[in-house]
Amino acid sequence: MKRIALGVEYAGDAFCGWQSQAHGRTVQDVLESALGQIAAQRVRLHCAGRTDTGVHASVQVAHFDTDAHRPASAWVRGVNALLPAAVVVRWAVEVDDTFHARFLATDRRYRYILHNTPTRPALLAGRVGWFHLPLDEARMAAAAECLVGVHDFSAFRAAGCQAKTPVRLMHEAAVSRQGDYLLFDFRANGFLHHMIRNLVGALVYVGKGRYPVPWMRELLESCDRRGAAPTFAPDGLYLCGVSYPSRWPLPDDGRIIALPQLPLA
Amino acid sequence: MKRIALGVEYAGDAFCGWQSQAHGRTVQDVLESALGQIAAQRVRLHCAGRTDTGVHASVQVAHFDTDAHRPASAWVRGVNALLPAAVVVRWAVEVDDTFHARFLATDRRYRYILHNTPTRPALLAGRVGWFHLPLDEARMAAAAECLVGVHDFSAFRAAGCQAKTPVRLMHEAAVSRQGDYLLFDFRANGFLHHMIRNLVGALVYVGKGRYPVPWMRELLESCDRRGAAPTFAPDGLYLCGVSYPSRWPLPDDGRIIALPQLPLA
Repeated sequence: MKRIALGVEYAGDAFCGWQSQAHGRTVQDVLESALGQIAAQRVRLHCAGRTDTGVHASVQVAHFDTDAHRPASAWVRGVNALLPAAVVVRWAVEVDDTFHARFLATDRRYRYILHNTPTRPALLAGRVGWFHLPLDEARMAAAAECLVGVHDFSAFRAAGCQAKTPVRLMHEAAVSRQGDYLLFDFRANGFLHHMIRNLVGALVYVGKGRYPVPWMRELLESCDRRGAAPTFAPDGLYLCGVSYPSRWPLPDDGRIIALPQLPLA
Repeated sequence: MKRIALGVEYAGDAFCGWQSQAHGRTVQDVLESALGQIAAQRVRLHCAGRTDTGVHASVQVAHFDTDAHRPASAWVRGVNALLPAAVVVRWAVEVDDTFHARFLATDRRYRYILHNTPTRPALLAGRVGWFHLPLDEARMAAAAECLVGVHDFSAFRAAGCQAKTPVRLMHEAAVSRQGDYLLFDFRANGFLHHMIRNLVGALVYVGKGRYPVPWMRELLESCDRRGAAPTFAPDGLYLCGVSYPSRWPLPDDGRIIALPQLPLA
């Protein structure tokens, strides 16, 4: 039995999230189907971050076990030939059987891209979030600072979240601007359900001037979801990196992969 | 009667091209429908460049006549509320009745974005072209130089092209690289049917080493489509600017609008 790790890129607006379900096409479903055809046996995938409907990945890491002996290129080019256009396997490597894409991931990185213009985006509809009023990125960056460290993130947790604990270690929480785009970068050992979209919603409240910067810390410390802002749309959210201990040297070292860029004219 | 000029952005992979047709949803169809609802009367649009199926626009210019008296915001925000996500009106301005979006355009600018990586794009599937082998952008840029000036572009003309003459004035024909992306920038007084996609196909032949740089000039001078390369996919092609004489000061002055950018991590 071999264990294979995959790096997968997908546009989340084409799928009903990562996780297999009875009704609706998911990323896991189409990948397991394509891998199963190459392996000529049923394949079961485990991933680092089970993204919601509409959430994208520039690199998702997943693994599966198989008896099939195939060259590495079969798990990339062979599988890609069987996948829909919105998902692609970027790399495949054999790992030892102690590797686990979900349980051994030491941290995940997500980026939220928010298009901050009066008219909504069309070319990147579904691929970026949108907010039509001016936002003050300096206030938002200051508000985000309190999130770094070990905290109970209950104030940003969805009602249906199944995590055993609301406590997470946040390594990075940054807000910056590139032209008409605001970038929200988060790196943590893990995230609660809807946590990033709730964080973005709260930071937008600060950025548009509805609440002062210190409100963010008060909200965090309240551990009370009822005081927070609405959950932001999934459109702008990208899983863009997963890290593992150095004994598993995955391609790109499991670190952040650059998101694709449509160059400026 | 008023004449209104519009700047329109759209993702072409959601439409069967610009031009109205009996079967299939086109950009013109959905715009005329939304404008007609705001105007409460039938509206007929004329555009600067009738893009094919799958071809995008960061700025298409179009105009229509109407008896309806509406504030400018109605032609933007009102219409946008009625449009599908993949198309948006960026601006609307009243122009005098001598303006014509198609006949008075002095030049059009197109950009082709080619993702040059071993694995196909997923996040930007349908929004960028793709070529999997290494391409030499210096050779391609050198080959493109011969295209500038007044030429008979019959070698790059689709069989069904209805233009009266194959002669065009090319102001700019450039190839450059930004990371994994090759950018093909063309500016001319007009383009023949499939001309840019045929030019990109020929330049890729030079870039991958199939033909030497001078082949491009030989091909151009042959005026023979049979010697050329296959038509490239529409996925990476963007109409990104239309110019008019200075007496019509359109927003952005009818010049190039920046394409949106997913920033690098």
